[in-house]
Amino acid sequence: MIDVPAGLKGVAVTETSVGDVRGGEGFYHYRQYDAPGLARDRSFEDVWHLMHAGDLPDGAQREDFAKRTAGCRALTPRVASALPAIAELAGGAGPLQALRAAYELVALDQGMTSWLDAGPGTLQDQALATAAVFPVLVAALHRLSGGREPIPPRADLGHVANYLYMLDGAEPDPVRTRALETYLILTIDHGFSASTFSGRVVASTGADLGSAVIAALGALSGPLHGGAPSRVLDMLDEIGTPDRADAWVRARLDRGEVIMGFGHAAYRTADPRDTLLREVARGLGDPRGEMVAAVEKAVMTAFAERKSGARINANVELYAAIVMEAAGLPRELLTPTFAVSRVVGWTAHITEQAARNKIIRPGARYTGPEPRGTS
Amino acid sequence: MIDVPAGLKGVAVTETSVGDVRGGEGFYHYRQYDAPGLARDRSFEDVWHLMHAGDLPDGAQREDFAKRTAGCRALTPRVASALPAIAELAGGAGPLQALRAAYELVALDQGMTSWLDAGPGTLQDQALATAAVFPVLVAALHRLSGGREPIPPRADLGHVANYLYMLDGAEPDPVRTRALETYLILTIDHGFSASTFSGRVVASTGADLGSAVIAALGALSGPLHGGAPSRVLDMLDEIGTPDRADAWVRARLDRGEVIMGFGHAAYRTADPRDTLLREVARGLGDPRGEMVAAVEKAVMTAFAERKSGARINANVELYAAIVMEAAGLPRELLTPTFAVSRVVGWTAHITEQAARNKIIRPGARYTGPEPRGTS
Repeated sequence: MIDVPAGLKGVAVTETSVGDVRGGEGFYHYRQYDAPGLARDRSFEDVWHLMHAGDLPDGAQREDFAKRTAGCRALTPRVASALPAIAELAGGAGPLQALRAAYELVALDQGMTSWLDAGPGTLQDQALATAAVFPVLVAALHRLSGGREPIPPRADLGHVANYLYMLDGAEPDPVRTRALETYLILTIDHGFSASTFSGRVVASTGADLGSAVIAALGALSGPLHGGAPSRVLDMLDEIGTPDRADAWVRARLDRGEVIMGFGHAAYRTADPRDTLLREVARGLGDPRGEMVAAVEKAVMTAFAERKSGARINANVELYAAIVMEAAGLPRELLTPTFAVSRVVGWTAHITEQAARNKIIRPGARYTGPEPRGTS
Repeated sequence: MIDVPAGLKGVAVTETSVGDVRGGEGFYHYRQYDAPGLARDRSFEDVWHLMHAGDLPDGAQREDFAKRTAGCRALTPRVASALPAIAELAGGAGPLQALRAAYELVALDQGMTSWLDAGPGTLQDQALATAAVFPVLVAALHRLSGGREPIPPRADLGHVANYLYMLDGAEPDPVRTRALETYLILTIDHGFSASTFSGRVVASTGADLGSAVIAALGALSGPLHGGAPSRVLDMLDEIGTPDRADAWVRARLDRGEVIMGFGHAAYRTADPRDTLLREVARGLGDPRGEMVAAVEKAVMTAFAERKSGARINANVELYAAIVMEAAGLPRELLTPTFAVSRVVGWTAHITEQAARNKIIRPGARYTGPEPRGTS
């Protein structure tokens, strides 16, 4: 039995060409393309095409991809008619659980089978259809939970604009759409997070794509995964005004609690996603600017004092929350919206796992009492 | 980055006291008790108590545990009323997908939250309720898919007898009940299979128990996981008569295909689960005895010829399938019935993961082209 660090930290569980996080350099990329660069210059569909097909699209591919993905948005009547029951049941649970239950219905309805039987082409189609339908499910569940009818998708809108449109039926504002699009591109993939890894473990058994995506959604729902930007807004609301930031931060650290939106396991530098999101927030009028600056300053000061000069940096949650709020997303949709983005990364990882599969079946060190008879 | 064998084979991802498989010795145990010994001498509830509470029950604990688990069987009206839609949608998908979708509704309805918030007592309650409700869901979906009304559980029957009762409403035969019970005890846990591991990965994020169980169900649905005993029966039917076994096996090996029910990654010896299941099959009149003996002989002979004397042994799937069929389970319920057993192991692992948690977040070796600008 080979011993490794707890939590498989720093253990290379497989080879990948989907992307890489270079924590020491404050750099991460998708299939060799600097990710913040893509978020600056490209559409969500372009980057989705990169993750899905392996390279950025040319003009004809772009048009074809837009048509294909838009064609996967409509829900079947069987799924659509079951959504109200899901929305009602999900009242007490998290919105990710509701999305997962709804996506279960899509997977059931499509009769997804093992990728061993389905073959690579079908697996790719399922991957595309899955990522295409996520925003449709999130928007429909959101409306149903508020007692409103879902708004059917519009095929003439891009992936991100259509998502915003389905939430309230208004023509989406281009500046807000682009802000959300930037966030979504930035968070498509980021190493072997627990959600990505759990999706790959499930896929490694030959299970269908739906089973793997559902596992990943479950992992994303865990508070330690770090996919809950709404907690940052809750924190800012709790602090209330910039002048209270310092006392609030100190009291929280005194109680040994973490501060939402700060620190990331992967980066020693500033989170490279934050630089761009800061700019985007400014472009939206920087609605929480003064408040965020006060909290950042308070956290850095308190941290440096307590850890003899050590630095802590804001992580992607902080500015992600600000940007999504300013783009008009309701707070309860922040984590499901993260899933709308990350599902593109998950499906790229799942198809890669299938393409060069080896079942992931580790060992464990038994440390209980020595076996005896059953007496 | 630390390199390890592909698929994490032989890598100790954590410490555990739930159980251990000693492949070289043909031995496995649950919390220090020889598992086949437990299957011989104990009730399912006794072993469930061992997995759940950490030790075998005394008389008072046994009574209390029977009451508690029986009290968790009834479905709420909200869940019960949604099951027909699941059964209808699941027509084209696998029965495990249907079970998972139904269990999603239970988890949603209970509003399961992160074990970080719920605390260890609630987590344990959820674990018990989850394992208690699995056979209820399997039986209800089975009946609904055949156009029949579900049969409500009976609190006066044990876990296994009640499962059989809910399938057809007949008073369960004690010999068949005990045969199924023996199988179910034997398959509660068996090392860090991909399903158990994926459940632990999801739990390591602080996700709720339901999310972790759902991930495990997804992994179990993969054909490489080895949880599909019905394929053995399909094979026996395809062979048809004992005299055709030899030619059928040789033709299949010539095509480079595996033979269902033979070989196991963990054991070099005979699978220790098989010895007992063979006896149980004999006790049920050995309905497929002649056929199985012919196939076993054909496989061993052909294998020894081709791999210069190497041995291959029947694995748990072979006799599991025979026993479950002889106990009267419909073929499409064989894998869901495996889940009815294994969920007890999963929930023990998930609660252990929570008790000494470290988030499971590995790395990977990037092997794509070197990063460049976005051009």
